[in-house]
Amino acid sequence: MLDKLNWRYATKKMDPTKKVSEDKLNKILDAIRLAPTSSGTQPFEVLVITNDEIRQKIRPVAWDQAQITEGSHLLVFAAWDNYTEDRIDAVTAQMAEERGAENPMLSQYYKKLKATYLPRDAQTNFEHAARQAYIALGFALAAAAEVEVDSTPMEGFDPAKVDEILGLREQGLRSVVLLPLGYRDESGDWLLPLKKVRKPDERFLRRID
Amino acid sequence: MLDKLNWRYATKKMDPTKKVSEDKLNKILDAIRLAPTSSGTQPFEVLVITNDEIRQKIRPVAWDQAQITEGSHLLVFAAWDNYTEDRIDAVTAQMAEERGAENPMLSQYYKKLKATYLPRDAQTNFEHAARQAYIALGFALAAAAEVEVDSTPMEGFDPAKVDEILGLREQGLRSVVLLPLGYRDESGDWLLPLKKVRKPDERFLRRID
Repeated sequence: MLDKLNWRYATKKMDPTKKVSEDKLNKILDAIRLAPTSSGTQPFEVLVITNDEIRQKIRPVAWDQAQITEGSHLLVFAAWDNYTEDRIDAVTAQMAEERGAENPMLSQYYKKLKATYLPRDAQTNFEHAARQAYIALGFALAAAAEVEVDSTPMEGFDPAKVDEILGLREQGLRSVVLLPLGYRDESGDWLLPLKKVRKPDERFLRRID
Repeated sequence: MLDKLNWRYATKKMDPTKKVSEDKLNKILDAIRLAPTSSGTQPFEVLVITNDEIRQKIRPVAWDQAQITEGSHLLVFAAWDNYTEDRIDAVTAQMAEERGAENPMLSQYYKKLKATYLPRDAQTNFEHAARQAYIALGFALAAAAEVEVDSTPMEGFDPAKVDEILGLREQGLRSVVLLPLGYRDESGDWLLPLKKVRKPDERFLRRID
């Protein structure tokens, strides 16, 4: 895995003639699905966009980053705008169904969860949901590297505009991060030859033994 | 990788007699180091705690979760409390040094970054930094699974108290997530036999072709 993580980089130039196969895409989506989230809520959705017209609309509100249209797929991670009773009840119901409804700990647990989340303001809950989406983003990046698909995590976009293009707000969702998938254009990418830079351990890791 | 992601789960009961080897720990730390972050800022630090006394102090402010002391290592992800001129300058200086200082795009880029980040309130910047830490959390979880080390991502703790125990705030850091590492106690873990529950695609994934 580590050599693959060294192989990956935030691809700046993708080759528009190359397409990620359905098989590889599904491996990346499986990793996203398997990412753990707080109390198993999975408080986000993932849009998988190949539609050219929509990607053409998103590109100008994302600093005109070419990977959005030159990759073969654009993933949009959209977090819940808030936790609601209905949303948490749906999680509880699915857990009860799949794990056996006779577990009293389960309903007790999610009752406590609602008592914690529901009184909080929407922005706090959204930020919490967004963090969960970022765990899944991590899984997606690692899985893409594993199957040698290039990817570029992007925060540089206007979320309100992307939400509007995709009709997210009316579904209680807010875009948090974009992830184009595709294949690097080795000759055209200025970032590829540059060294991967990471902090030395003394500024990043601390051992307390 | 996918079978390993299915193997992993939020381990509830760890075997205190088993210790993660230095070799496996380093693979997990390498993955954390390689996680991408916004503009390469790596706006968080990771504390790797084996010290028993400190873990005994953290456990009661983290819902008394036993994995904190029964795992062999406790990772604490601590995000920057804010972006500052010094912090961004240090990132720019390291990039310039490792990639060659002659690049005018680089200083221009980080100048723009400062113009965006520095006027924002500390909480907004902290939330942004916390999200980056969550990408690395995703990498840590995937890498731990890869080397068959168990792990339990934990948000259930009092961050102010953990910050105090570790002296984080005075270093401009705030704890955002804990990750005990260790080995599952197969006979004692109530969660292990339960089915891994994930939403069906129709409530989680949307294809726009």
